[in-house]
Amino acid sequence: MTTVTLVEYEDACDEVLEVYDDIRKLRGSDFINNFWKALANNPTQLKQIWNQLKIVMGPGSIDPLTKEMIYIAVSVANSCTYCIHSHTAQAQIKGMTDEQHSELIAIIGMAHQTNGLVTSMQVGVDDTFLVK
Amino acid sequence: MTTVTLVEYEDACDEVLEVYDDIRKLRGSDFINNFWKALANNPTQLKQIWNQLKIVMGPGSIDPLTKEMIYIAVSVANSCTYCIHSHTAQAQIKGMTDEQHSELIAIIGMAHQTNGLVTSMQVGVDDTFLVK
Amino acid sequence: MTTVTLVEYEDACDEVLEVYDDIRKLRGSDFINNFWKALANNPTQLKQIWNQLKIVMGPGSIDPLTKEMIYIAVSVANSCTYCIHSHTAQAQIKGMTDEQHSELIAIIGMAHQTNGLVTSMQVGVDDTFLVK
Amino acid sequence: MTTVTLVEYEDACDEVLEVYDDIRKLRGSDFINNFWKALANNPTQLKQIWNQLKIVMGPGSIDPLTKEMIYIAVSVANSCTYCIHSHTAQAQIKGMTDEQHSELIAIIGMAHQTNGLVTSMQVGVDDTFLVK
Amino acid sequence: MTTVTLVEYEDACDEVLEVYDDIRKLRGSDFINNFWKALANNPTQLKQIWNQLKIVMGPGSIDPLTKEMIYIAVSVANSCTYCIHSHTAQAQIKGMTDEQHSELIAIIGMAHQTNGLVTSMQVGVDDTFLVK
Amino acid sequence: MTTVTLVEYEDACDEVLEVYDDIRKLRGSDFINNFWKALANNPTQLKQIWNQLKIVMGPGSIDPLTKEMIYIAVSVANSCTYCIHSHTAQAQIKGMTDEQHSELIAIIGMAHQTNGLVTSMQVGVDDTFLVK
Repeated sequence: MTTVTLVEYEDACDEVLEVYDDIRKLRGSDFINNFWKALANNPTQLKQIWNQLKIVMGPGSIDPLTKEMIYIAVSVANSCTYCIHSHTAQAQIKGMTDEQHSELIAIIGMAHQTNGLVTSMQVGVDDTFLVK
Repeated sequence: MTTVTLVEYEDACDEVLEVYDDIRKLRGSDFINNFWKALANNPTQLKQIWNQLKIVMGPGSIDPLTKEMIYIAVSVANSCTYCIHSHTAQAQIKGMTDEQHSELIAIIGMAHQTNGLVTSMQVGVDDTFLVK
Repeated sequence: MTTVTLVEYEDACDEVLEVYDDIRKLRGSDFINNFWKALANNPTQLKQIWNQLKIVMGPGSIDPLTKEMIYIAVSVANSCTYCIHSHTAQAQIKGMTDEQHSELIAIIGMAHQTNGLVTSMQVGVDDTFLVK
Repeated sequence: MTTVTLVEYEDACDEVLEVYDDIRKLRGSDFINNFWKALANNPTQLKQIWNQLKIVMGPGSIDPLTKEMIYIAVSVANSCTYCIHSHTAQAQIKGMTDEQHSELIAIIGMAHQTNGLVTSMQVGVDDTFLVK
Repeated sequence: MTTVTLVEYEDACDEVLEVYDDIRKLRGSDFINNFWKALANNPTQLKQIWNQLKIVMGPGSIDPLTKEMIYIAVSVANSCTYCIHSHTAQAQIKGMTDEQHSELIAIIGMAHQTNGLVTSMQVGVDDTFLVK
Repeated sequence: MTTVTLVEYEDACDEVLEVYDDIRKLRGSDFINNFWKALANNPTQLKQIWNQLKIVMGPGSIDPLTKEMIYIAVSVANSCTYCIHSHTAQAQIKGMTDEQHSELIAIIGMAHQTNGLVTSMQVGVDDTFLVK
């Protein structure tokens, strides 16, 4: 159960409706997921996060599917159940195959393992990695 | 300073040398980075991790550069300084441009933010994301 | 489901009852929340944690509501669902308004984002911040 | 060593200079800390984060010093050394006394402990905490 | 709900069946827990993780019960609910008493607390701890 | 550099000296490590943590070396560099062999990996693990 009330479309103020309508238009669907309904308690933040997300996750030098996979990786490390589910769904919509999903999971597992090994052993950064 | 001794090439036993030589061959360079030298205290594990990493990070349905970017994302979330530096270096070797690096950083920041927002608000997973 | 049995008031030994009664008295309510019932499997620890919490969260140079908001912030970063819910409830009892809750969530989100950005870029601490 | 180049004032493009000048003006000092110099590699993001931070950390229903203490709490849980140092410095500028700092540290420690206890025991959320 | 399909015994390919049969044999039970059924979507990884786990968690210089308690400690810190439950069950099968469980929980709580205190205060490592 | 001043023996008040002397006596050495010197800014907390740590890490149903290894495991997962170094040193004083250290590192790595895999796949807890 959320710690805030979910703001439904019917109850939304104009500032929130503007974002909800933009979400609906961009996705070609009436569905608004819970994250936005929860965020809508703070209309200024709702608008800011939505606009920022459109830029960050939109077209660029990294393709949209790769962006979703990176998002999943962070969300797993942060144990964010909601985020893992919503971005896995997004990645599938953007074309992630089962094989890619399987490889993604393996990379995430592997990275966690070597992160743990490195931190246990407190390995010092090689000079060659510090060239900036 | 590491909590284990780094095993230098000169001091390595045969089982370790086999892996060191494979690393050198694959990378076309004599350089062995500290992670492997630290791991070499446990030759069985050294071999297992190296072989696993070759498979997981090798050719597949996700391209090698994307794999490195996913690795960086996990390493940031786990605060693994060594891993961030070594995989950023690897990503650059595999062709990551400054623009891609910049976008990667933005995605990681954004994902951390929405992870934090979602967890603060304890947003429940929408049914539509649970279709498996 | 907990990994330990919850110790109900009726089944509690004297050492546990002493703490339970102190909780009831301090809160002016018969309600004992699950955290204490779980902790009661180790009466010494129950007593120690309860006494420590009374001191740390009690009157001091930081006001009680601010203390709860700091507690929520840590609990979100540690993904502790129970703790987020119980301390959000406590904060509301101590007077947290919806506007303050909304700002708290925004700060937590923002901090996560800049934490992620800083760690991705491995920003070095400015000398001026190291004056102690 | 950062994984990106720090953009110094002398080398900054107009878009970056605009933010740098705003930072200098708001703080009444010529000093620009490394976080902004690192972020300046992505001028759009620099501007967006700076503007967002001004809103989130600015005047509101939570006072500015409390906001900094919440920021420190998140940064500790995320092990962000830079962020802990920079926001501890900010908190001191905003009037945090040694006694408050000491209480803040105690709360952070306490929250980590009970987070760990709760997660170990997998304590279920009491119904009364789920009233939204 | 998992983000992948669970592979039941009846639907498993030969490569998966080989691992499933080994799990059943080693445990002396027909029960296969969900982790393996989820992992079975990637038969190569299933086999690799199972073989690695048999080595790492098997007989060695650290006794099997201690290994499970260490596993629980990591899983708590990573907020992995499934892992906490499955390894607590394993630890109980391997003889963990209620008293040991209680002490384990206390150590985990204590370690989280001092981790938080140390990180808040950014305590520098004493030279004497860096003797390697 | 710490965010608080280290309290040296010469500058300590009576309440702090009492703990410092107890540390020295218990360890049979004049050495006081930085953690206690940092904590001494809050004498009440210093005393409380020291007394708690003596109980939690002292003799019980889990042997002292195992307790240190569990402490290391948590500290790695929380990326607490200081704690990893100090508890690895303590574990070595309490008899941890290189082989045990090596196995400990392998377990920590393995646990991180399966934590990451489980969380990626959002594996549901098997009913049989929920028997309490």
